[in-house]
Amino acid sequence: MYETSLKVRFGDEDHARIAYFPRIVHFFHCAFEDFFDDHGHPYRKVLDEDGYGWPAVGLNVDFMRPIRFGEILKIQVWVERLGSKSATFGYRAHLAGKTAALAQVTVACIGMESFGAVEIPEPYRSLFAEHLQPGHSESLKER
Amino acid sequence: MYETSLKVRFGDEDHARIAYFPRIVHFFHCAFEDFFDDHGHPYRKVLDEDGYGWPAVGLNVDFMRPIRFGEILKIQVWVERLGSKSATFGYRAHLAGKTAALAQVTVACIGMESFGAVEIPEPYRSLFAEHLQPGHSESLKER
Amino acid sequence: MYETSLKVRFGDEDHARIAYFPRIVHFFHCAFEDFFDDHGHPYRKVLDEDGYGWPAVGLNVDFMRPIRFGEILKIQVWVERLGSKSATFGYRAHLAGKTAALAQVTVACIGMESFGAVEIPEPYRSLFAEHLQPGHSESLKER
Amino acid sequence: MYETSLKVRFGDEDHARIAYFPRIVHFFHCAFEDFFDDHGHPYRKVLDEDGYGWPAVGLNVDFMRPIRFGEILKIQVWVERLGSKSATFGYRAHLAGKTAALAQVTVACIGMESFGAVEIPEPYRSLFAEHLQPGHSESLKER
Repeated sequence: MYETSLKVRFGDEDHARIAYFPRIVHFFHCAFEDFFDDHGHPYRKVLDEDGYGWPAVGLNVDFMRPIRFGEILKIQVWVERLGSKSATFGYRAHLAGKTAALAQVTVACIGMESFGAVEIPEPYRSLFAEHLQPGHSESLKER
Repeated sequence: MYETSLKVRFGDEDHARIAYFPRIVHFFHCAFEDFFDDHGHPYRKVLDEDGYGWPAVGLNVDFMRPIRFGEILKIQVWVERLGSKSATFGYRAHLAGKTAALAQVTVACIGMESFGAVEIPEPYRSLFAEHLQPGHSESLKER
Repeated sequence: MYETSLKVRFGDEDHARIAYFPRIVHFFHCAFEDFFDDHGHPYRKVLDEDGYGWPAVGLNVDFMRPIRFGEILKIQVWVERLGSKSATFGYRAHLAGKTAALAQVTVACIGMESFGAVEIPEPYRSLFAEHLQPGHSESLKER
Repeated sequence: MYETSLKVRFGDEDHARIAYFPRIVHFFHCAFEDFFDDHGHPYRKVLDEDGYGWPAVGLNVDFMRPIRFGEILKIQVWVERLGSKSATFGYRAHLAGKTAALAQVTVACIGMESFGAVEIPEPYRSLFAEHLQPGHSESLKER
């Protein structure tokens, strides 16, 4: 399963001295960018040259464990559902194997010029299909 | 129903020139702070003097309409569910009446020193009970 | 002198429980946006319809007093220097009259399409000239 | 000279589709954290165990070249001035060798409990002294 990592920063914490939860949502988007970058499709090129955008239309997160600055957060990425014009990505953020947060983010596929929904084209459909693991989010929650 | 508003900023947009979705999650937290502040319980005092924290443990968002910088975003806040040691807040962000995003955020009630879950104490329980509207999130989605 | 205000948020603080200093730089940009908005030139229109952008090319800040969440920060804005293709804005952030931070931000005037420097056009030149107070930054530092 | 790097993200850009300048200030703080981490003093430990904080009291930045998402930004870090209770760090952010921004950030050394200024203690004084390059900022500006 695809995995990336990032370093949690001093400024990512809030008054309660844990990572501010909207920043954790940002971390999931960083992992989404890395997923494209590391599979031969630099995310900037996907948007600006290929002309396909992936706005979030739905978001679901379970926060299970505080994330603190100085920690290296690892994030696993898979495709939970592959639709015609949208896909749901699954994410598991963990700290040395202990799950800190689980997320599902549904993204629409749009043309960057029209800003309207389009069918997910190749080569993205194949890339997503290779990482398809329906039910994986549920199985993680059951543990 | 309680409502607050905020101004969407130049720096809230991302490369796609719409508000970056983790920033929209931040907007909901701003509305949560305002909800306390405007009901006689300054949020900072709730945390630092009363000693109760409200970390997000679950988050669900439907993004329905792009939010752009320069717009005034209005956010309605209610309590969707009131449990013993947690509550689920409902949020509707709208632009001049048109729904831009709906969210439910489940927060645990913790003691700021122990960082452990505690029963939601007065006067917060009464405040939340006054704003309880179970099923309101669902009714908005059905429209 | 033009003044605007903003509310410091829970998520604006960092691990040291004071506003993270890059967020304070963001606050100055919010005041810059408000300066345009409140003088009949909505900043979004300035950029997207009039086609003029104002990227920061220089930044200087003195942080004098911690800024904490829950506080209402007031920010005064003036023009410290008005050049041909650039201008330097002065900012004083204060908490109930006590200076928390002083800043000067030099912005270039660019055409949004060419991204190249252009002469500051009307009506912006007149607007800036009306708020010109050369030496005001220095006078504040001397106090 | 110490150098670290970071990846510029989709959400770091603003409406003008370049990295929002307060985010660039954040990047410099990330480099400051890395400087401690990579010299055997994890920044979190410096603050929470050793009990020394380093709030910014002065900030000076020259922005020379737009920074865009998808780019790897390299940041060089040195000590421009080493005082008794404060130090000025110099930063050069570059994209494949081309300078994008230069900064000087003056930090005070404080005790995290008193929040008052203290003399920079060992081992930090020695670490800073090893990286002392007075005048380096000026020499870069002259080029």
